[in-house]
Amino acid sequence: MFSRKKLYTIGILALTAGVSLGQTATNNGSVRQEPIIPLVHEVVVDEGKAELGKKLWFDPRLSKSGFISCNSCHNLSMGGSDNLPTSIGHKWQEGPINSPTVLNSSLNFVQFWDGRAADLKEQAAGPIENPKEMASTHDLVVDVIASIPGYVDEFTEVYGDGDINIDRITDAIAVFEETLITPNSRFDQWLRGDDDAITAEELAGYELFRNSGCVACHYGEGIGGASFQKMGLLEEYKTDNLAKGLADYTGKKSDEMFFKVPTLRNVVLTYPYFHDGQVNTLEEATQIMGRLQLGRNFSDDDVKKIVAFYGTLTGEQPQIVLPILPPSNNDTPLPRPFDDEEEIVVEES
Amino acid sequence: MFSRKKLYTIGILALTAGVSLGQTATNNGSVRQEPIIPLVHEVVVDEGKAELGKKLWFDPRLSKSGFISCNSCHNLSMGGSDNLPTSIGHKWQEGPINSPTVLNSSLNFVQFWDGRAADLKEQAAGPIENPKEMASTHDLVVDVIASIPGYVDEFTEVYGDGDINIDRITDAIAVFEETLITPNSRFDQWLRGDDDAITAEELAGYELFRNSGCVACHYGEGIGGASFQKMGLLEEYKTDNLAKGLADYTGKKSDEMFFKVPTLRNVVLTYPYFHDGQVNTLEEATQIMGRLQLGRNFSDDDVKKIVAFYGTLTGEQPQIVLPILPPSNNDTPLPRPFDDEEEIVVEES
Repeated sequence: MFSRKKLYTIGILALTAGVSLGQTATNNGSVRQEPIIPLVHEVVVDEGKAELGKKLWFDPRLSKSGFISCNSCHNLSMGGSDNLPTSIGHKWQEGPINSPTVLNSSLNFVQFWDGRAADLKEQAAGPIENPKEMASTHDLVVDVIASIPGYVDEFTEVYGDGDINIDRITDAIAVFEETLITPNSRFDQWLRGDDDAITAEELAGYELFRNSGCVACHYGEGIGGASFQKMGLLEEYKTDNLAKGLADYTGKKSDEMFFKVPTLRNVVLTYPYFHDGQVNTLEEATQIMGRLQLGRNFSDDDVKKIVAFYGTLTGEQPQIVLPILPPSNNDTPLPRPFDDEEEIVVEES
Repeated sequence: MFSRKKLYTIGILALTAGVSLGQTATNNGSVRQEPIIPLVHEVVVDEGKAELGKKLWFDPRLSKSGFISCNSCHNLSMGGSDNLPTSIGHKWQEGPINSPTVLNSSLNFVQFWDGRAADLKEQAAGPIENPKEMASTHDLVVDVIASIPGYVDEFTEVYGDGDINIDRITDAIAVFEETLITPNSRFDQWLRGDDDAITAEELAGYELFRNSGCVACHYGEGIGGASFQKMGLLEEYKTDNLAKGLADYTGKKSDEMFFKVPTLRNVVLTYPYFHDGQVNTLEEATQIMGRLQLGRNFSDDDVKKIVAFYGTLTGEQPQIVLPILPPSNNDTPLPRPFDDEEEIVVEES
């Protein structure tokens, strides 16, 4: 964990540097020196692997029920999120935390709200066998995928042989996720020097956002996602949600309520807000953040401007051609949407 | 209902005619005279309406939970079905019947297994307010969609004004569904005169299929979907499923176990089989159909050939670019995934 805390510290330093540089540069064609950095326009990945990963991403056979896919809770039609306070899992179980957007998630310094996965590949393995989410097991998923001739062919093409294991499955999913960036938002256009890309109100909102200290956490290419920060820094955040953030992972009291700072890219699409998903509007989220994190009471007019700025952070959404999944065959383990645990134990013994 | 029974009778006549014509024509470039007719290559629809319908098709805000969309149970990655015996509905309720494929569903003479909807538009209205499926109401769905500026703009563009009602919502969905055809299967290529499009085994399977009388029900452009037929014509079909088919709609004892004949197009993708989804393999489905409907005991070798023929019925799957849904705004009614009915009554009173 030391390295993560260290990254957090570096994050704080970076923001300080960012703020000190935070004057709007004159338009000379170069990127403005701001604490927020424009997103690259494209990522280069192994296309075959990304295509395989896309199939796995959309495949509900990764869940015990055959009903829940990665896309169920990180819906690429809806900003890479499910727009619910907390997600719906196997047998309609209520998830413990808000489903973060998958968009630009490759930029996050760690994955999950509590940072317990180092990267996207490690993250992808989690929900598959979480009994409250997809409720399968890695062994079962490997059996399912390895039984499907179309997948065996595709793994062979991508990895050189038909050996299917959870490492390759999550590797392919992670590579697909790396492609899910949203470049060329109006704010990025402005950062690259296009003065007309945002309105005067939006610019005023950004200046308020920057000069009030929001960029202390929401900085860099991800506009967040680069550090842990305490939710309720100056004033306690009141919630019924049980998540304690980093402390759930480290067990340290001092890490309580430290969460990975969420990205603000596409924030207009990723409602509701905060780790508990209890805040539905950007206006309310901004007021709460100002008070709890910065000790500020933003006026309604300030909030209006800052929310207008958020509207400039929606980037070009990934154009996804829905994959056609290779069909199961007679040997594929069947989905078990309605089995309860006792029945399964009996059948497997 | 008289007209539907009449259509059923016409279906039987058509099949008789088909069988009498059912000799493989010599290859002269014209369509072979068979009881199965090749699918048209494309349909012409209002593109703007289809695009709007596509958004609605993928939008889980048509459900009370905000989690279930049309595509949840008619998944266009999986042959337009959910590949489950019966579907999973609101709060993980077990659906009463197998989810039929949406692919080529515009060819069905009526919609639903029991034919209770005359067309796709009427069908689309059903699941939205079925308490076991999407569990919303038409009023609520109209409120949700009408609150979303992006939808209001698109309805205005398509329908000439921003009036949003359930009639227009289901109209747009139905038009999108009309585009979901799967032309150019290998069997269609063969029907159009390409002798090499199917193998000798597949052709032998088709000849068994045709000459055994399967085409009595599975005929025409849809290879089914053009008539009601009794499930268990010569021998009772044993099932725990409660559905009684047409009788559930007409209340007539004589209509019991009459179901709309399902299409066999893409049947390799639309497992499991029958209205109760209780049969997982095409081999078993073929044996059961032969015995119950035709009084035949197909040999294993016959079944193998017939199943090989089914493999030629997979057409080109629709290429769908996943839509980006217009976001809710602060006035959009919130999804209620975990409310129970009592709570809602209290909150709405």
